[in-house]
Amino acid sequence: MTHYKLTLAYDGTHFAGYQVQPNQRTVQGVLQKALAKMAKVDHFHIDGSGRTDSGVHALGQVVSFDYPGNIPVEAILRAMNSLMPLDVEILKAEIVPADFHARYSATGKRYLYRVQRGRYTDPFKRLYTGHFPYKLDLDRVRVALDDLVGTHDFSSFAASGGEITDKVRTIYEATVREDVAANEVIFEFYGNGFLYNMVRILVATLLEIGTGRRDVHDFLRLFEVKDRQQARGTAPASGLYLKEVYYDGEQPVR
Amino acid sequence: MTHYKLTLAYDGTHFAGYQVQPNQRTVQGVLQKALAKMAKVDHFHIDGSGRTDSGVHALGQVVSFDYPGNIPVEAILRAMNSLMPLDVEILKAEIVPADFHARYSATGKRYLYRVQRGRYTDPFKRLYTGHFPYKLDLDRVRVALDDLVGTHDFSSFAASGGEITDKVRTIYEATVREDVAANEVIFEFYGNGFLYNMVRILVATLLEIGTGRRDVHDFLRLFEVKDRQQARGTAPASGLYLKEVYYDGEQPVR
Repeated sequence: MTHYKLTLAYDGTHFAGYQVQPNQRTVQGVLQKALAKMAKVDHFHIDGSGRTDSGVHALGQVVSFDYPGNIPVEAILRAMNSLMPLDVEILKAEIVPADFHARYSATGKRYLYRVQRGRYTDPFKRLYTGHFPYKLDLDRVRVALDDLVGTHDFSSFAASGGEITDKVRTIYEATVREDVAANEVIFEFYGNGFLYNMVRILVATLLEIGTGRRDVHDFLRLFEVKDRQQARGTAPASGLYLKEVYYDGEQPVR
Repeated sequence: MTHYKLTLAYDGTHFAGYQVQPNQRTVQGVLQKALAKMAKVDHFHIDGSGRTDSGVHALGQVVSFDYPGNIPVEAILRAMNSLMPLDVEILKAEIVPADFHARYSATGKRYLYRVQRGRYTDPFKRLYTGHFPYKLDLDRVRVALDDLVGTHDFSSFAASGGEITDKVRTIYEATVREDVAANEVIFEFYGNGFLYNMVRILVATLLEIGTGRRDVHDFLRLFEVKDRQQARGTAPASGLYLKEVYYDGEQPVR
């Protein structure tokens, strides 16, 4: 047995999310099926760094698994890519210590959210951005992003249904930048962990702050009230990307 | 009656091409349905600058039609966009003289072809580029592109099935550039007209010249032999974009 770590990108549009579900096309399902075929077994189990929802994309999702024998990483990379559908690309294969676990060893994650500006939806971006045509004051958004950094109770920003009760998370970085050429506004969030739908709810709230419909320091109030109803909206899945998963000793690469 | 010209962009992935076909989702069909609804009529006919195939995109397709009354262009633009599916965007509406015809008034067209480089298919570009992982010598490609410019018989580069017998066309510009950041090679062709599948066949041939598998001046031979079998391949529809349609008096905008 050898223990492997794969880093992969996928277009989430045609997946019912990352996690295996019966009779659904999932990223985990596609990966496990390919590995079962390679290993000539009926079932193969992999561990992912965490779920992504239906329509959510990944630029650097991470999975780990044991594989029989000792196959070079280059051979694993080539074999896996030859078995992947066109909406999944394996970017990197590594041999890692046996105690490495894609989820439990992770020390942080970086998410990116692309907001498409402009009056009408760009046909080529409808699956890869969230569209927001209204006027935005990015200075207000930046003040609000500063309120997000630090350790807070994110109960107001967690979709119900999760089994997680501890909703305290630390955000190390929360930024926004404008890509004028692409006519996009791009958010990035780097933290030690994120709750179910948390980034999409944060983005929806940030956009409301940017239009002036919500107080610029509303996050401070929302941390206190711990009430999902107060944060309201959820930005579309299509704009969200799991950009990078960090493990001990790794420096975040911007 | 007022005569209108619309310029539109579409993602061709989920269309069976531009031209109306029974029981198929087509761009012309979607536009005519919206206009019929607006005009409260059963059938509405529009003229397009030309067909694009299934999977082929447009950044600047042009259509023209008569519409009852005298509605301001801004109202037409807003109404049409509100009725369009997310994979079509109306970019511009203009009132034009009654004798303007999207197809017959056109004096030239510009097509763009995006080739994705890199070893494996990028999941986010699979629908918007053609993938070509092999080594390319762009200097050879540029020499071949120079052979294309001018007036030639393109019989070797026309898919069979077209009803057009005159296969002489003039190409004013044929260029290639590398987008290093995007890891793409981008072709542009500007000419007075293009035959069915012509750009895709030209690109496939240019890529073969770029790898060295085909003589650098093979176009000169292919113009002579007038034999579709000699040019062989057709690059995937996903990389092709109708970028702009030109009309008398308009200067090409790069």
